[in-house]
Amino acid sequence: MRRFIVVGHQAVTTPDFGLDDLAGATGRLDVLLRCVNSAFMLSHGLREDTELHLALLGPPGPPTVLHFVGAELRHLNPDERSTAALVRKALARGKEGRSTPGIHVRYQDFHGLLQEFSETLVLLREDGQDLRRAELGLDPTFLLSDHRDFSREEAAAIQAVGPPVVAVGPRALHADHCIVLVHNELDRRRP
Amino acid sequence: MRRFIVVGHQAVTTPDFGLDDLAGATGRLDVLLRCVNSAFMLSHGLREDTELHLALLGPPGPPTVLHFVGAELRHLNPDERSTAALVRKALARGKEGRSTPGIHVRYQDFHGLLQEFSETLVLLREDGQDLRRAELGLDPTFLLSDHRDFSREEAAAIQAVGPPVVAVGPRALHADHCIVLVHNELDRRRP
Repeated sequence: MRRFIVVGHQAVTTPDFGLDDLAGATGRLDVLLRCVNSAFMLSHGLREDTELHLALLGPPGPPTVLHFVGAELRHLNPDERSTAALVRKALARGKEGRSTPGIHVRYQDFHGLLQEFSETLVLLREDGQDLRRAELGLDPTFLLSDHRDFSREEAAAIQAVGPPVVAVGPRALHADHCIVLVHNELDRRRP
Repeated sequence: MRRFIVVGHQAVTTPDFGLDDLAGATGRLDVLLRCVNSAFMLSHGLREDTELHLALLGPPGPPTVLHFVGAELRHLNPDERSTAALVRKALARGKEGRSTPGIHVRYQDFHGLLQEFSETLVLLREDGQDLRRAELGLDPTFLLSDHRDFSREEAAAIQAVGPPVVAVGPRALHADHCIVLVHNELDRRRP
């Protein structure tokens, strides 16, 4: 199993957003939508061995986690707009539980996520050890942020868990590109 | 310099498409839009050392190449919709030349592109030599297809040029993901 947690610091927790300005009025939900693509899309089919947690921490709350389960996913297409429609449907549910096949809504904050995956956590950060040489464990859970750095409080909570810190390469990249690189490294180790 | 050529076999050559169904009525222009993102987007800024040629071979013609020049690009955002608007503007130009900063329109077919970059061409294909061990030259031009394989005629034309064939890893991936992996490999070789 491969898991990714992506934190959307201002990503909206309401379904009241339009599909025509995903990079504008959604707290940069577009960043997270691209992470859905890179977490699951293969040339022919989906990555069934992958799960993704999108932590939406923006208004109006409560903090919401959208949990994508590769083995159960249906109706997922590679483009941002159709994935945004799935996210909107999940947020419109208004309570915890399954929204569409493979997408589950949970009211969970960042600390709850950290605790749940503390045993397998790997932090992706530019100053980490090279991904190609890192020990990753059997069921790693990679933690990434959106276009913003982790806050001081979040960084302290992560440090308390003490995960290994890994870098995908010499350049600072968007979260969705980092996910592509992690998948490739794991594909090579466990073809 | 790093160059990518992505062939959109059915990608429209008219600006008469809506921004609300990019994965539907555009001949899968959405695939190419994601390649623009992965060719140029860094966490902070754009890749100025990169150029991208989108070969649009769909109706109504003529075959059109949109040439993106990283060092000149302005107004490029990571989301699909805003990039689609730039592509529409380029196609609305109706003649060759610069559309917006860093985006140039050329009426060129697949064979013209192959000839222009025959000296530096590298074909990305699943059965190729491993990218991590491949000789790539100083100014490689990576050739990729969209969601379709190259046609028999195209494959023959490529074979006549005889480029090295390189694979990004053990799984078949979308073109935009392949571009992320190529960039990472080159970033590591020439930090």
